[in-house]
Amino acid sequence: MEPLKVLIISADNFEDTELLVPYYRLKEEGFDIDIASVKKGPIKGKHGYEVEANKALGDIVPDQYDILLLPGGKAPETIRKDKNAVKIAKHFFQRNKPVSAICHGPQTLITAGLLKGRHATCYKSVAQEMKDAGAVYEDKEVVVDGNLVTSRQPSDLPAFMRETLKIIRAK
Amino acid sequence: MEPLKVLIISADNFEDTELLVPYYRLKEEGFDIDIASVKKGPIKGKHGYEVEANKALGDIVPDQYDILLLPGGKAPETIRKDKNAVKIAKHFFQRNKPVSAICHGPQTLITAGLLKGRHATCYKSVAQEMKDAGAVYEDKEVVVDGNLVTSRQPSDLPAFMRETLKIIRAK
Repeated sequence: MEPLKVLIISADNFEDTELLVPYYRLKEEGFDIDIASVKKGPIKGKHGYEVEANKALGDIVPDQYDILLLPGGKAPETIRKDKNAVKIAKHFFQRNKPVSAICHGPQTLITAGLLKGRHATCYKSVAQEMKDAGAVYEDKEVVVDGNLVTSRQPSDLPAFMRETLKIIRAK
Repeated sequence: MEPLKVLIISADNFEDTELLVPYYRLKEEGFDIDIASVKKGPIKGKHGYEVEANKALGDIVPDQYDILLLPGGKAPETIRKDKNAVKIAKHFFQRNKPVSAICHGPQTLITAGLLKGRHATCYKSVAQEMKDAGAVYEDKEVVVDGNLVTSRQPSDLPAFMRETLKIIRAK
């Protein structure tokens, strides 16, 4: 069987553990992971970890991916302004494919208008704009609503990954 | 069933992902985790992440733990000099309980004289002293020898955690 394909979308100033913990966790499962950013090349986390964005967002063919993962930090501020990122997020929701977003990660989904009526969580400073976007915001370590898994912050990573893998396995 | 008890031993200047990735991964499994250091209180990683050492090494009763995990970075330089840490490591080997060490983590096992004739790996700069300690050093992402799982560096974390969980489940 082909390994599942994961797409992580991020940019400079990502929250290091919110990218690296899921990255290593999904590698442990044997999944194939691409990291896409505004352009190809190294991106740097808030704590100084560097990872290679091996794809530019403009080159992504969303049909080739099974799972979308959106880490937090300041990166989503950049990502939500990228039309390709918004288009990719919409594709995943249209096909009901798993999307996992943590901390500021859901901001891209807010910009894409994908959270109306959806149960979700996020970093506390993002809560108001999540509600304004029509989401049913819940202050919990993880919220699962259909294809969507959201969490608030790094300390939620164990629950975030557990639920992410649960919805992947259910598919 | 009681959750398994994990003991992570580290100190200031730990390699952040080598502590945090296993910590979150083992939390995902529902394990109970204590972090012990020379004294109780916050310890800081090389990249600035702070975690709480909720135990002092001198207060650890090794019998209460099922798994020992030794992250890398510069922390093991401090830890290997701590008599309690060395005593704890010996306890785990005597009882054949799982010990996982990554990067510079195996230095504490070297000081404890526990690697004679054992297959193991470590960060490349530690390889010579590992060989000098009588280990059969292998330059591989993960080496499993009985109760002992070792890896070289952060990029080995997926294999390190996969094999760590495998030997825990086999017990």
